[in-house]
Amino acid sequence: MLEKNVQTFIACDCEYDEAKIVMFGAPFDSTTSFRPGTRFASQAMRSESFGIETFSVYQMKDMLDIKVFDSGDLELPFGSPERALDDIRERTATILGDGKIPCMIGGEHLVTLGAVRACAEKYPDLHVIQFDAHADLREDYLGVKLSHACVMRRCQEILGDGKIFQFGIRSADKSEVEFVMQEHTSLNLFDFRTLREVAGYLGNAPVYFTLDMDVLDPSEFPGTGTPEAGGVHFDELLDAIEVLSELNIVGFDMNELSPAYDPSGRSTALACKTMREMLLRFYR
Amino acid sequence: MLEKNVQTFIACDCEYDEAKIVMFGAPFDSTTSFRPGTRFASQAMRSESFGIETFSVYQMKDMLDIKVFDSGDLELPFGSPERALDDIRERTATILGDGKIPCMIGGEHLVTLGAVRACAEKYPDLHVIQFDAHADLREDYLGVKLSHACVMRRCQEILGDGKIFQFGIRSADKSEVEFVMQEHTSLNLFDFRTLREVAGYLGNAPVYFTLDMDVLDPSEFPGTGTPEAGGVHFDELLDAIEVLSELNIVGFDMNELSPAYDPSGRSTALACKTMREMLLRFYR
Amino acid sequence: MLEKNVQTFIACDCEYDEAKIVMFGAPFDSTTSFRPGTRFASQAMRSESFGIETFSVYQMKDMLDIKVFDSGDLELPFGSPERALDDIRERTATILGDGKIPCMIGGEHLVTLGAVRACAEKYPDLHVIQFDAHADLREDYLGVKLSHACVMRRCQEILGDGKIFQFGIRSADKSEVEFVMQEHTSLNLFDFRTLREVAGYLGNAPVYFTLDMDVLDPSEFPGTGTPEAGGVHFDELLDAIEVLSELNIVGFDMNELSPAYDPSGRSTALACKTMREMLLRFYR
Amino acid sequence: MLEKNVQTFIACDCEYDEAKIVMFGAPFDSTTSFRPGTRFASQAMRSESFGIETFSVYQMKDMLDIKVFDSGDLELPFGSPERALDDIRERTATILGDGKIPCMIGGEHLVTLGAVRACAEKYPDLHVIQFDAHADLREDYLGVKLSHACVMRRCQEILGDGKIFQFGIRSADKSEVEFVMQEHTSLNLFDFRTLREVAGYLGNAPVYFTLDMDVLDPSEFPGTGTPEAGGVHFDELLDAIEVLSELNIVGFDMNELSPAYDPSGRSTALACKTMREMLLRFYR
Amino acid sequence: MLEKNVQTFIACDCEYDEAKIVMFGAPFDSTTSFRPGTRFASQAMRSESFGIETFSVYQMKDMLDIKVFDSGDLELPFGSPERALDDIRERTATILGDGKIPCMIGGEHLVTLGAVRACAEKYPDLHVIQFDAHADLREDYLGVKLSHACVMRRCQEILGDGKIFQFGIRSADKSEVEFVMQEHTSLNLFDFRTLREVAGYLGNAPVYFTLDMDVLDPSEFPGTGTPEAGGVHFDELLDAIEVLSELNIVGFDMNELSPAYDPSGRSTALACKTMREMLLRFYR
Amino acid sequence: MLEKNVQTFIACDCEYDEAKIVMFGAPFDSTTSFRPGTRFASQAMRSESFGIETFSVYQMKDMLDIKVFDSGDLELPFGSPERALDDIRERTATILGDGKIPCMIGGEHLVTLGAVRACAEKYPDLHVIQFDAHADLREDYLGVKLSHACVMRRCQEILGDGKIFQFGIRSADKSEVEFVMQEHTSLNLFDFRTLREVAGYLGNAPVYFTLDMDVLDPSEFPGTGTPEAGGVHFDELLDAIEVLSELNIVGFDMNELSPAYDPSGRSTALACKTMREMLLRFYR
Repeated sequence: MLEKNVQTFIACDCEYDEAKIVMFGAPFDSTTSFRPGTRFASQAMRSESFGIETFSVYQMKDMLDIKVFDSGDLELPFGSPERALDDIRERTATILGDGKIPCMIGGEHLVTLGAVRACAEKYPDLHVIQFDAHADLREDYLGVKLSHACVMRRCQEILGDGKIFQFGIRSADKSEVEFVMQEHTSLNLFDFRTLREVAGYLGNAPVYFTLDMDVLDPSEFPGTGTPEAGGVHFDELLDAIEVLSELNIVGFDMNELSPAYDPSGRSTALACKTMREMLLRFYR
Repeated sequence: MLEKNVQTFIACDCEYDEAKIVMFGAPFDSTTSFRPGTRFASQAMRSESFGIETFSVYQMKDMLDIKVFDSGDLELPFGSPERALDDIRERTATILGDGKIPCMIGGEHLVTLGAVRACAEKYPDLHVIQFDAHADLREDYLGVKLSHACVMRRCQEILGDGKIFQFGIRSADKSEVEFVMQEHTSLNLFDFRTLREVAGYLGNAPVYFTLDMDVLDPSEFPGTGTPEAGGVHFDELLDAIEVLSELNIVGFDMNELSPAYDPSGRSTALACKTMREMLLRFYR
Repeated sequence: MLEKNVQTFIACDCEYDEAKIVMFGAPFDSTTSFRPGTRFASQAMRSESFGIETFSVYQMKDMLDIKVFDSGDLELPFGSPERALDDIRERTATILGDGKIPCMIGGEHLVTLGAVRACAEKYPDLHVIQFDAHADLREDYLGVKLSHACVMRRCQEILGDGKIFQFGIRSADKSEVEFVMQEHTSLNLFDFRTLREVAGYLGNAPVYFTLDMDVLDPSEFPGTGTPEAGGVHFDELLDAIEVLSELNIVGFDMNELSPAYDPSGRSTALACKTMREMLLRFYR
Repeated sequence: MLEKNVQTFIACDCEYDEAKIVMFGAPFDSTTSFRPGTRFASQAMRSESFGIETFSVYQMKDMLDIKVFDSGDLELPFGSPERALDDIRERTATILGDGKIPCMIGGEHLVTLGAVRACAEKYPDLHVIQFDAHADLREDYLGVKLSHACVMRRCQEILGDGKIFQFGIRSADKSEVEFVMQEHTSLNLFDFRTLREVAGYLGNAPVYFTLDMDVLDPSEFPGTGTPEAGGVHFDELLDAIEVLSELNIVGFDMNELSPAYDPSGRSTALACKTMREMLLRFYR
Repeated sequence: MLEKNVQTFIACDCEYDEAKIVMFGAPFDSTTSFRPGTRFASQAMRSESFGIETFSVYQMKDMLDIKVFDSGDLELPFGSPERALDDIRERTATILGDGKIPCMIGGEHLVTLGAVRACAEKYPDLHVIQFDAHADLREDYLGVKLSHACVMRRCQEILGDGKIFQFGIRSADKSEVEFVMQEHTSLNLFDFRTLREVAGYLGNAPVYFTLDMDVLDPSEFPGTGTPEAGGVHFDELLDAIEVLSELNIVGFDMNELSPAYDPSGRSTALACKTMREMLLRFYR
Repeated sequence: MLEKNVQTFIACDCEYDEAKIVMFGAPFDSTTSFRPGTRFASQAMRSESFGIETFSVYQMKDMLDIKVFDSGDLELPFGSPERALDDIRERTATILGDGKIPCMIGGEHLVTLGAVRACAEKYPDLHVIQFDAHADLREDYLGVKLSHACVMRRCQEILGDGKIFQFGIRSADKSEVEFVMQEHTSLNLFDFRTLREVAGYLGNAPVYFTLDMDVLDPSEFPGTGTPEAGGVHFDELLDAIEVLSELNIVGFDMNELSPAYDPSGRSTALACKTMREMLLRFYR
């Protein structure tokens, strides 16, 4: 008898009960102000993940030796950010409630707000580490508060001052820089130079890690809606992820991959490889 | 002294006061459920319109002899359909209030709702003629009522039964067909065969015409988010527009051009040519 | 508890036991002589099938009311045609053995040979109806006998003279025309004019139907490796499929969709829509 | 000992002396006002011609049975139209001088002027048949007289009134229509309806045939710089070429293929197929 | 009353009288020998500039605080380099005559000649700094002297020896290297190592700065006609522009962006960001 | 009298007898497991090579001063790896037999096996240096032994242990790492750090050099089927080739360029430039 066709990110096909990390997709991009398309990221990553090895020569470890469960994509209502965020919060809470680590694939960066809401409920002392080209700290965008351009401002409202650490930022408007000057968040321009220091400061505190892939230089990662020249390199990103692996990562996401803007497919391939390295690093 | 750089659709550069038709763009696609991108349509049409002639060999008329004003694009908040519709209604009402005919370039099909709201206020007996591949008659889409897939249902709620005439439809779900069976709208499958008869019936009633470009066969118009094989041909569309020119068109729009899906650029070129023919036909 | 992510062609998700038609993908294109890429067809169709409705306004029927099972893709060894054909034959035989109708998504046209081998074992009087732009009747191609360009010649060797009916052909070399002149197959140039007559002749004989999508005009179906101008139109294809629905179709396939050659995505969308119409027509 | 790599259009590899038709490429597009790229046409056609058969099922004839010589591309100086036209005239004159028929692959339509100059020298009574979407009859374009938009006006100046027959035209400006009204050329809008009549009128007069591929509908031939909706179909073009084969064709060209605008490659494939049909038809 | 649609590069919308820098586009690419398309650069940059911030975190300055006027594009005759250069010279002279700094967006590199002609008239001691992958020092190209490949040679003829400083060059033919050996220009291979020294030497002399964007590595800037591996990086370019800001820049241009060769859009985005940094640096 | 159209890689047009290096193309990609397309590499490189200079500013040498013969492409049967390898072996043996150095342009990496077979026959002590992102050391791939993923394993079986030196590798599965641990090959992860040492060890031994272009970072070389982030840079590759030029290179190849995955064309341009540098370095 023939089997149903189960599709997961490569090697993320254990049973739910035995999984320590649970992946899901959040294909939502309705507030994207420039060029939409991140809704296709999770599906593309599942397909393309079979073009990489399960084995990492960087860590000499194999995905076949860890337990990750891919629970597929949420079906999110385009045009309704609040409802989409509710669905994301609920899925995240379910995973956290079962004692597992949620791993979300966006979608635009706004989706992070749903996951942070769930994590902050469980971990009142939650900190956030953000790798990103853009500060995402606006009070509103064209009058809208639930926008990708405001997502970290909304997170700051939940978590309070001094809880958000931003790295790789190279684009912000004047109001965002002023907001940072008031020490609401810790913003580190251009690179990861101060990451190790921050990691030491955080110690064992619960950390949510949000990786906006446009932190990478567009030469290495063109498949994103708002490419910002002057970004970090893949090797620097891998090193930074290694530093993060010493922290208490209670949830993480990868967002802003927009496959259609990269006909070479290498952005999706790089995203898959980065996901493999994160899963192997953050698994415990 | 050098001049500022004014950009309009070709030959739509008269002064506002003398214009009889006023064009504007409504670059909004947040509720698009499949493949977004129509937000780029109005801007692409302005640029590419300079690749066509102002003169029409179909009508032996010249755009240089009519008065159309292009008022540019609205700046619409992505992710907030209700606010976007308000802005569209307001712009439409302004144009109507000045005794001119509004001509909107979408955007996804939902934008039509904003214009219809304004027109129905001024013309209580408003009728709508829709050319489209999809019925757009759902009660809701994933629980959302302000969605491109529901736009004609929302219009029907405003206008009442028997006011909407749909042509070229070749995709609908069972619930939409049942809705039509109850005679809420008049749905004509596949082509324009019954158009002349409908035109006769409408006589001098005020008519809003909404042209979803995916009514065309995707072979001729690939640049759209949800291509549906089996559509009408360009020559049939021109003939149908000629029939409409006998009616009392009080407003009209063109929507669902998504330039990025057509690297040949011919969809945008066809949209520009169709716009020229409509402007020449509907001008009085 | 979260569920595994099952992915199928839209609405083909019943249980295997209750299915009457069983779909599978055969992603193989190693012998493609011009431009490869059909290996991506089945995966693309599964993803994109969610852009069409389950309901058909052509037949006023719904996929939700029939039972089809999508068993996913075979994992075929690139570069080894004989082994790939064995795997295809085995899957086809399994489905036939369970009293169900196999529906294969190629892949290059060579994959049809695997399915025909299995069908001919069960049905010694098997006939084949082929819609195609190319005759595919060469004795060999650069010395290779298992090539897409020879697939109907290989089928003819199994089935004997007078069993293969070819429609829509508009490209052949001199040797193929000579082969046809010897009445080994029945070749109908350009269109489906003689289809109804052939259908009458076939009566209740077991028929395998192979649909090379390049039978369509490249304007409507650009996403294929060897586009041949002068093809049939979508509406003609739908009519022809309606004629076929009166026959005893014991198996069928769709092949030669190469999604990457069509950035508009309309070829994949058309393939999905055609598949829906075939499933609704051939289901009994 | 290994041979040098000779590259020609398929089956155009006889010796120069025995050839009756001599092909050459004129890769020039410097005056293109909208979207350049036709310079790549001849090279693309040579490569892609190996994707079609040498045999035509339309004529049941084989390219292997006729003698055509492909002499490669001219090396034309971009930005210097007058010098480019001189080179084209010279090559054309050489071929005519050897008693052979020149077949040029453009390039933008301006290249036709070079060939017509050479033909008119040899044949004082030369007529021109033009298939095109655009009249190309402007006096000048932004003050430039040697522009693709003026090429037929320049030809008219050489040949005199009543010698040019234009078919398929669906774009012109007011000044061009007025020029035609004065009976300088014979302009036939939209299609080939009057072609047979014109052919009868021309009898045995020497005719240069220039085929601007944008005469085809952009759905069938998207690979061109200025796509104009509402064009003729491939089958109509083949029929028209058959009509032309009764005339005394002393030279011909195909121009305005711009391969990069058609990622599906079907425009180049169609151009190759049309070239094959023309070579088989015009060969005597 | 509705306003006309004024389109400028982001934040370059002050009144002409108050502007210190005046931008214009020179969309010309007729002599491009390899792959044309730079004619679309200025228009693309205006559209895409709204995807970047007006604020620079590199300089902590805001475009909103400086006065730049965008005067739109020249309408240049394709195929007539001499006339195009005249138009460019005239526009440049107008801006210089009003005491403002001209900032031109090409087009192919030949356009620089028009601007240098105007600047050299006003500033007899004009020097030129060129960032470029190619030396552009040929005597002629296929016999043509007004070609992008010769533009610096033509500038040298105007300015004399020792006035042109070339950086980042990694492609030249033998004749160009020999020309440099005779000390007609100062050519610095591969990078900006000697830039600071040259800046010291130039002191307060009037300098025209021409930035051929292909000086960047094609990984970071793929959107150009003749990509040359081994280029400089964006951060190096920003540093070099900072060095230039100490000089007396009397005019500058950016050229050779060809948007269509970069479907990711990041080349245009990088060009916009570089333009913002230059405007903020060169403004005084 | 007009000449036939000979097409070669730029400046590789001497007579066969005087050539010291003989180039040929091996357009084969049937075993490609992920994304095919390398079959188009050699043809694309010939066309695009005319976009680079024959002169190298890196070596201050000119291709016009060396003797290379381009013998065109083999016509290889798709789907039949063994026969394709035979044809490659034969062509390589012919060139070696005439005392010349073979230079092959792939195709997928499997083609290297054919050339290595011929070289190992002539040079029993043959060593191989491989630049690659992938180890290509699998015993089989889906049961197939003649696969691109196994090519170095097959070479190792011919040459024995300690003869293959791999550089730049950053992807392998567990079995390949174990194979390397047994010292069958010398695998150097990520870069060329140990290359100079290996070169010293090899001394004057005969060396076949195989360059899989995916050793480069995908940011610089996106045009390949299986992009692997974290690769070497172009400048590092040029330096490594300079080191190799001190060795006794008896044959070499470049493979895995897949032009269609890079619409910017810079991958093909980089491949051409690298080929020029290799020809100038390895020529003696």
